[in-house]
Amino acid sequence: MRTGIATVCLSGTLKEKMQACAIAGFDGIEIFEQDLVTSPVTPEDVRKMAADLGLTLDLYQPFRDFDSVSEDLLTANLRRAEAKFKLMARLGMDTILVCSNVATASIDSDDLRAEQLGRLAALAGDYGVKVAYEALAWGKYVNDYEHAHRLVEAVDHPSLGTCLDSFHILSRNWDTAPIEAFSPEKIFFVQVADAPKLSMDVLSWSRHYRVFPGEGQFELAKFMGHIVRAGYSGPVSLEIFNDVFRQSDVERTAVDGMRSLIWLEEQSAKWLEANAPALAAAGAGAVGTVTAARRRYPMELATLPQVAEPAGYNFAEVKAADTKGLETVLGQLGFEFNGRHRTKDVQLWTMGHARLIVNEGSSASGDNLAGTTADASPAIAGLGFDVDSPVIASARAQQLKAPAVPRKSQANEEVFQGFAAPDSTEIFLCQGSPDGTAAWTSEFGEAASEFGEGREVSPAGGTAVIDHVNLAQPWQHFDEAVLFYTSALALAPQPFAEVPSPTGLVRSQVMVTGDRSVRLVLNLAPLTQQDGSGAGQRKTYQEHIAFAVDDLVTTARDCKARGLEFLEIPANYYEDLDARFGLAPDFLATLQELNLLYDRDADGEFLHFYTATVGSVFFEMVERRGNYDGYGAPNAPVRHAVQYDLLHRP
Amino acid sequence: MRTGIATVCLSGTLKEKMQACAIAGFDGIEIFEQDLVTSPVTPEDVRKMAADLGLTLDLYQPFRDFDSVSEDLLTANLRRAEAKFKLMARLGMDTILVCSNVATASIDSDDLRAEQLGRLAALAGDYGVKVAYEALAWGKYVNDYEHAHRLVEAVDHPSLGTCLDSFHILSRNWDTAPIEAFSPEKIFFVQVADAPKLSMDVLSWSRHYRVFPGEGQFELAKFMGHIVRAGYSGPVSLEIFNDVFRQSDVERTAVDGMRSLIWLEEQSAKWLEANAPALAAAGAGAVGTVTAARRRYPMELATLPQVAEPAGYNFAEVKAADTKGLETVLGQLGFEFNGRHRTKDVQLWTMGHARLIVNEGSSASGDNLAGTTADASPAIAGLGFDVDSPVIASARAQQLKAPAVPRKSQANEEVFQGFAAPDSTEIFLCQGSPDGTAAWTSEFGEAASEFGEGREVSPAGGTAVIDHVNLAQPWQHFDEAVLFYTSALALAPQPFAEVPSPTGLVRSQVMVTGDRSVRLVLNLAPLTQQDGSGAGQRKTYQEHIAFAVDDLVTTARDCKARGLEFLEIPANYYEDLDARFGLAPDFLATLQELNLLYDRDADGEFLHFYTATVGSVFFEMVERRGNYDGYGAPNAPVRHAVQYDLLHRP
Repeated sequence: MRTGIATVCLSGTLKEKMQACAIAGFDGIEIFEQDLVTSPVTPEDVRKMAADLGLTLDLYQPFRDFDSVSEDLLTANLRRAEAKFKLMARLGMDTILVCSNVATASIDSDDLRAEQLGRLAALAGDYGVKVAYEALAWGKYVNDYEHAHRLVEAVDHPSLGTCLDSFHILSRNWDTAPIEAFSPEKIFFVQVADAPKLSMDVLSWSRHYRVFPGEGQFELAKFMGHIVRAGYSGPVSLEIFNDVFRQSDVERTAVDGMRSLIWLEEQSAKWLEANAPALAAAGAGAVGTVTAARRRYPMELATLPQVAEPAGYNFAEVKAADTKGLETVLGQLGFEFNGRHRTKDVQLWTMGHARLIVNEGSSASGDNLAGTTADASPAIAGLGFDVDSPVIASARAQQLKAPAVPRKSQANEEVFQGFAAPDSTEIFLCQGSPDGTAAWTSEFGEAASEFGEGREVSPAGGTAVIDHVNLAQPWQHFDEAVLFYTSALALAPQPFAEVPSPTGLVRSQVMVTGDRSVRLVLNLAPLTQQDGSGAGQRKTYQEHIAFAVDDLVTTARDCKARGLEFLEIPANYYEDLDARFGLAPDFLATLQELNLLYDRDADGEFLHFYTATVGSVFFEMVERRGNYDGYGAPNAPVRHAVQYDLLHRP
Repeated sequence: MRTGIATVCLSGTLKEKMQACAIAGFDGIEIFEQDLVTSPVTPEDVRKMAADLGLTLDLYQPFRDFDSVSEDLLTANLRRAEAKFKLMARLGMDTILVCSNVATASIDSDDLRAEQLGRLAALAGDYGVKVAYEALAWGKYVNDYEHAHRLVEAVDHPSLGTCLDSFHILSRNWDTAPIEAFSPEKIFFVQVADAPKLSMDVLSWSRHYRVFPGEGQFELAKFMGHIVRAGYSGPVSLEIFNDVFRQSDVERTAVDGMRSLIWLEEQSAKWLEANAPALAAAGAGAVGTVTAARRRYPMELATLPQVAEPAGYNFAEVKAADTKGLETVLGQLGFEFNGRHRTKDVQLWTMGHARLIVNEGSSASGDNLAGTTADASPAIAGLGFDVDSPVIASARAQQLKAPAVPRKSQANEEVFQGFAAPDSTEIFLCQGSPDGTAAWTSEFGEAASEFGEGREVSPAGGTAVIDHVNLAQPWQHFDEAVLFYTSALALAPQPFAEVPSPTGLVRSQVMVTGDRSVRLVLNLAPLTQQDGSGAGQRKTYQEHIAFAVDDLVTTARDCKARGLEFLEIPANYYEDLDARFGLAPDFLATLQELNLLYDRDADGEFLHFYTATVGSVFFEMVERRGNYDGYGAPNAPVRHAVQYDLLHRP
């Protein structure tokens, strides 16, 4: 699949954008007219720069408001078009995007439109230019891609074809199957954009909320599948108008975009496989079917190393220059100190099947973002996931442009395959074992006498696992993170929630495996809790790791006995809880005594408590009863308010 | 008018919110349930705190999803309500908001609803509680305020009335006139919210985009007029769900809200005056009519000192510790140095009728925000406006909670009435004179030999005026600024525009007088150009002052001859200009030679150029031909791109 991206997706100057596209690995770009008009670089130099960077210049765009106008206006429009055709010759470009008229259209006649588009095509032909006519979703008379295609057919000129843009088609819920009947010679260009499903006017939706494929809710694999089946083999190019992307680091955003196309390519191949025509299905089994399905179409769809979703968390890693506070809390929670690593400055703590690595590395080492928080105090630095094959999963992640962070290892030590998530959390791929153990733990020495020797481990801890991890995302990289975990780790985004906090709404995106063995919560913190400098750093927003146990009341009592500082829940909360659920007085009293929070829905019950915060990290202990699948969202505002109060208490 | 505000409008803890409301001068508050539930303060202490702060506790809210349910669920809902009634007794509150059911409603029967609301009213009566029933715009069966009122009438219980919320009524475009026929005894509460007119689902619109009255587009004065005519005299309370307000400084936001109610009160009185019933209109002239109109209704509507819109800019002030670069640019632009102030470290520069004060004060003085930019380099610090009566205008501004910034003056010096705008620009009210002169200029000494003595002043400068000023707004205070200039200076907001820049979209809000003698442009810069710490500081975003002249080409030539550094416009721009407008080759060549930008619309033409930036300030010179009323918006992206390129050039 030939990949492309429109310069309008990115921040910076035309030169910065082109360089970022080349670095990200795009085959070509669309030049958004304004990026050229505002640039001091001459068209000839743009052409040379593209050639030097190995980028093709695939589409000049957009030419607006051409058709359905009076003869006077048409004359002016043809003059304007001719000037652009001349410019394109200097740029060495041969395809221009012409959008259906939204502003100056005054005559609703397909005959007239065909005649006017015919004259444009004839002029374009004189300059060797191909006109890709596109139906904008809010075009005055032409807003349906089949309508645009009918006009192209009616004109029947080699210089006139159509441009298919997924946003304009899927935002209107047009059926995409008819694309298959299009002649591939008449599809001059394909643009892809995803978007969250919003109920708003389509123009605002398009101009501000488009996202890269995989970051929204459009059925893009199906859209692409129909296009491939039509026989199209030209560029598949991103055209994303997004308020945040326009403000983000240009190279980061370009990589995010490239990742989305790599993922879409794979998803499209899968869709074709799953929807292979009956003829091909008669071939020799699944693999044969795919091959047969692919062979029928000129577009080559590359695939990625296949991975299943992870089987669980292998470990979580917290980094701190000063580990004292952390060690205290872990001990109080019932974690057992399992010793120090043979060669690295890290400690292993375990509770049941939950493993926590405490990294004594200096937070100033700069090798991850969580470690750059102000005062070298604890921050979540890494997550290990159990996968079938760490090598294959790592290869997949790297093909998806995940920056590798190989961990230095001595001989005879397990080498973790790792890469950096968009928020710089280090993600490690581990070999899971059926009995829930991990081979690498043998690299840690005896607990010896260093910490809590002989301390009684809570029996409730015996079956403890990491239930979920909650990471704060910089505002510039929230959508990127969703695609990252979707594509590289096969986690699935759940519908997002918004949680009120004293400093603003927190947007919360849960990513899960189908069996919920991995639950990862991405939180977009209020801006006032972020560094707005664009560096993408987290600031005061607190992150946490939650552990699930079988009996939270017992666990909480044990923790209390060990002196754990609980996040103190206001009495008002328990009154409201009673009003909402009518709990048994004894049970309610227990909840209040132990600072436990409670939620209930049709599927089950949820009990949980939070610890005080150490650095930027706190911990949660949860008990899931029945099939409760949430995270106590109604209680999150209480947690935020109490934490805010503690931070701001004089 | 009794003023109120819901705690959900504000950031922080319940205690912080209550204190901010008291400081801002509200009479009472609505307690949003979540703010109490998440608070460590007991209901008794909330009651005491409110009494100490002089705040009444007007409404407990919201009670959700009560009506239209099965008998089982109703029993649970009544139990839940009873718990809240008991809580209200401890809070000393007597009114609760009950919203029409959006979630659990399953039975669409007005008879059943009336029966269920009747049982709620009976229970409420036992506790001395009044139930204010409100139709949510997205209520499942009840979404029309007249429907809610009909149910209240049907129940006919002294403990059941209705709550009228402007958002739920105006977002659905319901006619507000029928309110006048409501019995005032049945209107238990009134909530006001404004909103921009957006095409999106009403729930998202309501939850994220509400703004304070005067910051949106709803006809709130009319809404209030009908309510006053109905005979209502209870609290008028703000209930604003706004993503930005929730993140902003609590005291600032409370003052912004209070200003909106003061303004709304005045606008409502004016609406009543303009729409006085025929009976009252038979009174003795306009004043008598107002009095008569007011006397008929129990709600007292306070008025404000009346001011007309300003007649023009009296001056603009730029502050810099190092004024050298600024002096050079002003001289090159054709400004004449008019001397130093007798007692202050300020210089006066003039060109035609345009006066510019250069304040040599240290930027570190902290008395305004523009002055806190990094390096003591020039920044716009103040604006003087010509008004009929500075004293009256100042009194109005102060009643609208504008923080006064009196300028220290010696005897025999003009005292400027001044106040701080939301972005901390100092706004001064000046006595305009018919001949365009200003008395205070006599306080400045002779130009003497200090600067450019004997320098030839450009003849084109003879009629120069300040055309517009462009100020960057911190993201937390953009809506506040719109209301501020609307209410305090009688400027009118124009439809806003969005301008692409290399670092993101710039939201641009023009505020004007009817005759365009004052044009002020408020720009919401991309976040990456702002300090996200919440301090509300501008950062790298550049601001400018534009001067209008009669003959821009001559002016530009003069400036060029004096060595002015123009913002250099790319050749690509002129090619595009030609493609768009087909300009005469000579004219186009002149534009390009002088780095002039050009725009044309149905009303006229616009020529302009920009200077290089000094500190955070640059200047623009414009020529308006015909009735061109814009600002060259199509050229703004070019300006942003070139400025960005200069800033980022290695």
